[in-house]
Amino acid sequence: MSLVGAGPGDPELLTRRAADRLAAADLVLYDALVPEEALQLAPAAKRFYVGKRPRRHSLAQETIHALMIRAARRGQRVVRLKGGDPFVLGRGGEEVLALAAAGIPFEVVPGVSAATAVPGLAGIPVTHRGVSPAVLVVSGHAEEAYRPALESLAPGCATVVVLMGLASRVALAGLMRERGWSASTPAAILIAGATPGAWQWVGSLAELAEAELPARLRGAPGTLVVGRVVELPAQVRALAASAASGAATG
Amino acid sequence: MSLVGAGPGDPELLTRRAADRLAAADLVLYDALVPEEALQLAPAAKRFYVGKRPRRHSLAQETIHALMIRAARRGQRVVRLKGGDPFVLGRGGEEVLALAAAGIPFEVVPGVSAATAVPGLAGIPVTHRGVSPAVLVVSGHAEEAYRPALESLAPGCATVVVLMGLASRVALAGLMRERGWSASTPAAILIAGATPGAWQWVGSLAELAEAELPARLRGAPGTLVVGRVVELPAQVRALAASAASGAATG
Repeated sequence: MSLVGAGPGDPELLTRRAADRLAAADLVLYDALVPEEALQLAPAAKRFYVGKRPRRHSLAQETIHALMIRAARRGQRVVRLKGGDPFVLGRGGEEVLALAAAGIPFEVVPGVSAATAVPGLAGIPVTHRGVSPAVLVVSGHAEEAYRPALESLAPGCATVVVLMGLASRVALAGLMRERGWSASTPAAILIAGATPGAWQWVGSLAELAEAELPARLRGAPGTLVVGRVVELPAQVRALAASAASGAATG
Repeated sequence: MSLVGAGPGDPELLTRRAADRLAAADLVLYDALVPEEALQLAPAAKRFYVGKRPRRHSLAQETIHALMIRAARRGQRVVRLKGGDPFVLGRGGEEVLALAAAGIPFEVVPGVSAATAVPGLAGIPVTHRGVSPAVLVVSGHAEEAYRPALESLAPGCATVVVLMGLASRVALAGLMRERGWSASTPAAILIAGATPGAWQWVGSLAELAEAELPARLRGAPGTLVVGRVVELPAQVRALAASAASGAATG
């Protein structure tokens, strides 16, 4: 039984071990953020979707545990395939506790976390020398998850990355402004990170609350990034344009 | 020109894209934390070590930039291979600015960060529902990097992961105690993360400063983890032992 991180959505960003485990799998239990092409790496496996469903209840976490345990007890090679990394806001801890309690041996295969790779693919380093020596990754899903950290962390001492933060961006931005983050702090909204439908918005913390999302993206998984590192892609573009015009005229 | 994350040290945790880029490379410029087996994925390439050297000066960052730029201008397929993820405490931001300024097109291939995978491979989820909804990743390399975040962040509201924090663990633990973290907060030292020489220590924040390292590991790269998530592997072991004894007697 393998708990496997599928990375941020681009099938080429699965690890080599993830691909090996999928190739050998009898059953793949996968989430909403797992790319379709990743499932094609498991041609011999039954594939069962256990993630969020529009306008329907998700499978309860306990049901997912029961499915894993039953299949493993039957001797099947089970891959539990989760978007990003199983242990970064991915409920992997709950799943390994359930497996241990059931006496099922398991391994965890770390994945490329969306928290670092979605900004990275947009050209934003979550840390950058002289700009930000630290990064706070927090779930935006519930206020009790993000409030204690964002209420206390001193402005500017770490990049803030919020996963599942689209719906709470007004509250998040308000909390950070109250804590003393400058209205002009650069901020980004990154949606559908490492997929062909990727969309992004860049502005300031003050504008974050009012940023308009295209209708097709409401409800999509989104990542917020707040901090001066958000300026790096614009700096890169300016340098590249200047180098190109220098080459053209030089 | 590709800036590629090599992951936490286990060659199976390179991404599929990282392996593709290595297979096609003419030149690989690699760091200390890159596994030897990863370099074997680039059989046709010249390989040049640009990381830290014991008792010698490291190559200056500017020298690495110059090597990348010169090789790319000659039309070589260059892979700059960095441990973990290039954009998580990896100086990737500096390197893309240098490439842009030189007019060199580049891509960034995110990797599995040591900040999440080294704890994960030790069975520690950096977040866990009901225990920690957030994680702060910070460099322990210099006091000005970690002090503002650790001085402000409220105790217990995020797991704290410190990369390159072995040498400063006395100061780090002192700072967190002063900020109000309980002496009994679980803490771990994880050395040489995803390699066969991996070593770990688990104890409390109060004991962290006095933890004794084997002589062979002094100077090795180490990851510190502080927070209640550090207890998870012991919980898993206890549940598994109980399930095994239940199965034996049942």
